[in-house]
Amino acid sequence: MKLFGTMRINEKNHLEIGGIDTTELAKHFGTPLYVMDETLIRNNCRLFQSNFRKEGIQTEVVYASKAFCTLYMCRLIHEEGLALDVVSGGELYTALKAGFPTNRIYFHGNNKSDDELKMAIDASIGRIIIDNQDEMQRLEALCGLYKKRMDVLLRINPGIEAHTHEYISTTHNDSKFGESIFNPTIYGLIQRLATSPYLNFRGLHYHIGSQIFDESAYFRSVEVVITFIKTIKQNIGIDIEELNLGGGFGISYTDTDDPIDLSSFLKRYLDYIEHLVSSLGLAMPKLYIEPGRAIVGNAGITLYTIGSTKRTYGGKHYIFVDGGLHDHLRTALYGADYTGILANRARDERINSFTVTGKSCESGDLIIKSIQLPLPERGDLLAVFSTGAYHYSMASNYNRMLRPAVVFVKDGQAKLVVKRETYDDLIRNERME
Amino acid sequence: MKLFGTMRINEKNHLEIGGIDTTELAKHFGTPLYVMDETLIRNNCRLFQSNFRKEGIQTEVVYASKAFCTLYMCRLIHEEGLALDVVSGGELYTALKAGFPTNRIYFHGNNKSDDELKMAIDASIGRIIIDNQDEMQRLEALCGLYKKRMDVLLRINPGIEAHTHEYISTTHNDSKFGESIFNPTIYGLIQRLATSPYLNFRGLHYHIGSQIFDESAYFRSVEVVITFIKTIKQNIGIDIEELNLGGGFGISYTDTDDPIDLSSFLKRYLDYIEHLVSSLGLAMPKLYIEPGRAIVGNAGITLYTIGSTKRTYGGKHYIFVDGGLHDHLRTALYGADYTGILANRARDERINSFTVTGKSCESGDLIIKSIQLPLPERGDLLAVFSTGAYHYSMASNYNRMLRPAVVFVKDGQAKLVVKRETYDDLIRNERME
Repeated sequence: MKLFGTMRINEKNHLEIGGIDTTELAKHFGTPLYVMDETLIRNNCRLFQSNFRKEGIQTEVVYASKAFCTLYMCRLIHEEGLALDVVSGGELYTALKAGFPTNRIYFHGNNKSDDELKMAIDASIGRIIIDNQDEMQRLEALCGLYKKRMDVLLRINPGIEAHTHEYISTTHNDSKFGESIFNPTIYGLIQRLATSPYLNFRGLHYHIGSQIFDESAYFRSVEVVITFIKTIKQNIGIDIEELNLGGGFGISYTDTDDPIDLSSFLKRYLDYIEHLVSSLGLAMPKLYIEPGRAIVGNAGITLYTIGSTKRTYGGKHYIFVDGGLHDHLRTALYGADYTGILANRARDERINSFTVTGKSCESGDLIIKSIQLPLPERGDLLAVFSTGAYHYSMASNYNRMLRPAVVFVKDGQAKLVVKRETYDDLIRNERME
Repeated sequence: MKLFGTMRINEKNHLEIGGIDTTELAKHFGTPLYVMDETLIRNNCRLFQSNFRKEGIQTEVVYASKAFCTLYMCRLIHEEGLALDVVSGGELYTALKAGFPTNRIYFHGNNKSDDELKMAIDASIGRIIIDNQDEMQRLEALCGLYKKRMDVLLRINPGIEAHTHEYISTTHNDSKFGESIFNPTIYGLIQRLATSPYLNFRGLHYHIGSQIFDESAYFRSVEVVITFIKTIKQNIGIDIEELNLGGGFGISYTDTDDPIDLSSFLKRYLDYIEHLVSSLGLAMPKLYIEPGRAIVGNAGITLYTIGSTKRTYGGKHYIFVDGGLHDHLRTALYGADYTGILANRARDERINSFTVTGKSCESGDLIIKSIQLPLPERGDLLAVFSTGAYHYSMASNYNRMLRPAVVFVKDGQAKLVVKRETYDDLIRNERME
């Protein structure tokens, strides 16, 4: 089983992360606890920064904050020199509160409200990624009101679907996102954008899906898109200055996952794009990529305290932990697989197969469908791996459970970044009368 | 299409609920908005109260608060004379804050923490439903510390599975809940409970699943359980004074759903149980049922404002609304079907087929997979039906979206029961340093 980042097993047979014994983290902050390995997050940022780079090409790495977005995370992303992609007023608000440089914030979404667009105009953010014609018209009108010209990209759908879970594949001809490159009206739309008094058309954005392990999907899609850029040039004489290639880089949740080797891939990706662009006689656009999960996914673990175990009459062996569906949705929602370790008995022999479930009053309350572990006892600590992306961000109060705290660890120091919710938080917005 | 409760289409061609035009609700409270029909909730309570009743049998209706739990709802449930089932410290806290009579609160859950058990003992709640042997021992020890005797039921698994979605069926031999009646150790466990100095053993609880349309599942399971009660009597001479039959009564989400006619069923259910009990020569136990969804499901609607619509190159016609996965999880999580109405053009001819999706940056962001509607325009109001259960309770801040407000409507009056979240709520528990 792979240990990521600064995780190691120490001389007490305990899992350590960021130089801190996980049993100490559990004691100090309680469980369930989301723990983020700041060193690994920063290293992942640097991996993208150093490999998505090539002499003669302008490149930029944009963190897709929907994977994990807090004030502290926004600041960290800025310190590492990445730009920030937000998908809602709430993410934009968080970025602004964190003091993120506004010209490096890019705003996505298929159905931005007028209020969200106003917020983006008001803050003079870097790019608004326009999803569709209707949004273009509204944004133009709002920019007119504010007497402000905004830099925009147009989200396109190149009709290529990466092989991934049905729910998280995004680019096919029936996707809700973007405008299809096969629809002849797209040229008129781009012409309209390029001549707008209030919209400064910079280029295109696309995204082919999430948790992708297949390099060829990236190569195939960029070929389609650059060919489309050539067609734009030929048909309407417009140059595409910027191309945002999206993200979707898969990570390893379990040992059977086989993610792309990014440091090798990113270089070949740029070489390939450069080759395509020059072979079609185009000017090289500025290139963006948008990793989210690939930055934070493996850097997060969830610490749970084990309560009862139960062997059912049917023969299933359950471990009950003190969290559940409310802090770990992806197993139920996507059928996702996870692994982990008994953090206080890390090297003990894994002799039994268990299903890890939580406290939720629901049979779908699954955390790990199947895992080999030593026979646990009440009070043992379970670390579930690769929960840095789409866990804190998807957490709910289902069953009126409390959302866990989030702690960043680095060099033996732990920082409380999000406080654990209290029962009072549950009723804060309620009224009896 | 069925209109539930007080819903009607008024002379302005608008959907009305609780005597209020939904366009007025949207104007006053904003969207997305959860609207609860208080009259229908109260009528549903009364339907159970008046039909789950028979001369010579003690009966009690318990509201399963996980379906929808707020302070206001707890008070309403008390006013209607139902008892309350809670599944976490958070639900218990809410009930206590609402002033719910503690002896009418029953505490469920497969993995209650010591803190939760202490909270329940401290508040002297009515029943703790013990899930397993380990919990029994811990509860007994804690009661010893508090020098308090608690009334308890034991959750059993009768090994019967209702035909329902894989994730929400709960009773089969591999369920995480309860102790199997087929495991010979169960008699020792019951004997131990019945002789405990600190636990006052009152009887059994079971629950066969959720969203059940098949009456026979109830009849078959209660036959198995009452036969088991007879075996307990024969084997170890213990009488079961109370039997909690659980809930799971399905509701109509769309016109193809065919729920049980409860007023007829509940009477026949009691007749059948009485017949079984007397034919086996047993004393009649007090009977409980636990409806949750059947009380609130059809009483709730979600109001969304329609933004863009989009016809994809592949031919799919999307309606984008101002909510999403974060306030409506069940379509993505269970593949659940919903229907609804264009609330401001309610009688207009439904000529097109649409997929309703939200703002979430995720392809699984589905609200209604397929619905016939008039061609909507930006600003039209969509009412999604039957969202009273497991919507507010499952809502999250995914994509840093804000959780909607909840309004109860009755006789032309609207009460704000949960305020809409603000951007500040998102970062309330965060720390930068």
